[in-house]
Amino acid sequence: MTEPAPRLTPLAEALPSSVPFVAPEMTERETGNKFLARLGANESSFGPSPMVKQAIEDACKDIFKYPDPQSFDLKTALSDLHAVPPENIVVGEGIDGLLANLCRLLIGPDDVAVTSLGAYPTFNFHVAGFGGKLETVPYVNDHEDPDALIAKARETNAKLIYIANPDNPMGTHHSADVMQRMIDNIPEGCLLILDEAYIELAPNNTAPPLDVTNKNVIRFRTFSKAYGMAGARIGYGITHSALIKSFDKIRNHFGVSVISQRAALAATLDQTYLSKIQTAVAKGRDRITQIAEQNDLKTIPSATNFVAIDCGADGDFARRVLTSLTELGIFVRMPFVAPQDRCIRISVGIPEDIEIFATALPTALKIARD
Amino acid sequence: MTEPAPRLTPLAEALPSSVPFVAPEMTERETGNKFLARLGANESSFGPSPMVKQAIEDACKDIFKYPDPQSFDLKTALSDLHAVPPENIVVGEGIDGLLANLCRLLIGPDDVAVTSLGAYPTFNFHVAGFGGKLETVPYVNDHEDPDALIAKARETNAKLIYIANPDNPMGTHHSADVMQRMIDNIPEGCLLILDEAYIELAPNNTAPPLDVTNKNVIRFRTFSKAYGMAGARIGYGITHSALIKSFDKIRNHFGVSVISQRAALAATLDQTYLSKIQTAVAKGRDRITQIAEQNDLKTIPSATNFVAIDCGADGDFARRVLTSLTELGIFVRMPFVAPQDRCIRISVGIPEDIEIFATALPTALKIARD
Repeated sequence: MTEPAPRLTPLAEALPSSVPFVAPEMTERETGNKFLARLGANESSFGPSPMVKQAIEDACKDIFKYPDPQSFDLKTALSDLHAVPPENIVVGEGIDGLLANLCRLLIGPDDVAVTSLGAYPTFNFHVAGFGGKLETVPYVNDHEDPDALIAKARETNAKLIYIANPDNPMGTHHSADVMQRMIDNIPEGCLLILDEAYIELAPNNTAPPLDVTNKNVIRFRTFSKAYGMAGARIGYGITHSALIKSFDKIRNHFGVSVISQRAALAATLDQTYLSKIQTAVAKGRDRITQIAEQNDLKTIPSATNFVAIDCGADGDFARRVLTSLTELGIFVRMPFVAPQDRCIRISVGIPEDIEIFATALPTALKIARD
Repeated sequence: MTEPAPRLTPLAEALPSSVPFVAPEMTERETGNKFLARLGANESSFGPSPMVKQAIEDACKDIFKYPDPQSFDLKTALSDLHAVPPENIVVGEGIDGLLANLCRLLIGPDDVAVTSLGAYPTFNFHVAGFGGKLETVPYVNDHEDPDALIAKARETNAKLIYIANPDNPMGTHHSADVMQRMIDNIPEGCLLILDEAYIELAPNNTAPPLDVTNKNVIRFRTFSKAYGMAGARIGYGITHSALIKSFDKIRNHFGVSVISQRAALAATLDQTYLSKIQTAVAKGRDRITQIAEQNDLKTIPSATNFVAIDCGADGDFARRVLTSLTELGIFVRMPFVAPQDRCIRISVGIPEDIEIFATALPTALKIARD
């Protein structure tokens, strides 16, 4: 056998082999127990529009064909929905895939990206993956802090700022006015990633107007949350056409499956179903809040399809609650960083799933307190 | 509006916005005409096993869930099929996606990769995309040249060698013995990418034995060709577990859709259907050869699901034939480089598609000759 081994780049050699999230299937295989309710990944167990299922069945006959690398039909529908030209839209393998490509375009060794401490770890994974340096600012009152993010970016000559509005993992949000002020204050030569994965579930007037003449903002949207299609791995970005074109320099052009493109098209066209989900999610948030109150706990007001429940003590206590819930067959996640890690994060699922959680929570709290 | 624009890395700035392949849908949108037969991308219009359609319909209920990032069920089935442990398998968004990740792991500025002049352009796209330098050797008698590839890699201290066996775009192949000798001669510290996208359609004794103790070879397989699922974007690599683990450093862990994973699992489990396809493809190759002969043209013997027809003159002539075929509603591609570009490349599709080509070819040749 030939030796030595292949020579990874110094950067690749130095990176850890890591998974940003442990999937529930991985836990199930480790423990040998199936989860009874899946409330940890902000998936929508309501599922997608019935039109999506039909679109998938219809797309089967075309699965032998390579997908359209331009996602023309989907981009046309998204263009109509958002009133922005198709040349301002890029479609990719979920926001995760788009974040990877965006980091690749902008981040080289020691380039700086700014985010909130405890925000979306997959962004951090990709920044590190291209040798970038992460600078963080803390949450303030369980909200991301736009002014501090901007100030830190200015101070560090950052190339990227990441903010999610509404936020994950806390579910809080800023108004469109606050976000517009943030956009107006982006430092020169910096790109703001405004991750709006949960925007369809937020109050009106949370998203600032889409302005595709602004070269310094990219907005990310997804079919994984309100549209109920996390398994299809498809999301999109909206930004200036120059940056959209740059994605063509590096992306896996044939990366998004035929079926996911058709499914996303059907989902986009059924905005009536989306309205129903918005109503159902609002009800689910109320029910989770009620369950928390019945257990003498408070919740963080949420603009998303999940609710952070303040377990009323420190991170160690919340982690014990989470461990107990896991043992009781409920998949839940929680924030990574103090003081947000005093909370556990419960996704809004179908009522049956939420009631399984309602039944288990008192026991989990009792075990955690003992 | 804030200016100046976001700062791409110097490498990203320098790259062209390019698409390795023009998709037939792009041509259709430009010309306003739908193709009558799609014989250009080596898709399998036979489609996948009926079990795949069933698996996709069954998977719809789980589309709200994020996919299993470990592709456990699929890797288990592939492990059984190939008699290699699951930890020696990586699943990705087609071979294209795996090539991108592999280049990212190994190729930095000015690192060298070796390939054949006129071989798979998407590999070249990704090498360039990470700042690598491509070194090429010519085809010999329409075959890739293992000895020359190895010699060039040694001479240039290459980190990567790419070879497809069977080859695309010519359809020729080397025996397992020849490939094993190539493997035995890989220079120290170099990784051989053995792209076996078409291996299921090649004669027995084309694939050398899988040896996952060898750190210097990675084998790529796909569901896009014989399995008839190009639209699902799913392929896999087989190599030493150390390199498999390295993919976890950088990949989009949740990148392969739930539906594609389930579809690939069903396809893997239906090897009876695969046998039928092998027979049907062999028949299709014979029919294309017959059509060529009826037009006084020769073909290159093929070990794939396509046949390169030698148009009997130079590249300009073959390009005129291809243009005429396109105008007659037939999607076909051809090699990029002389002297291989004397050929056009016809994918084996269902007999109806091949007969549309049979009808059009005499006209296309006449137009090209006039």
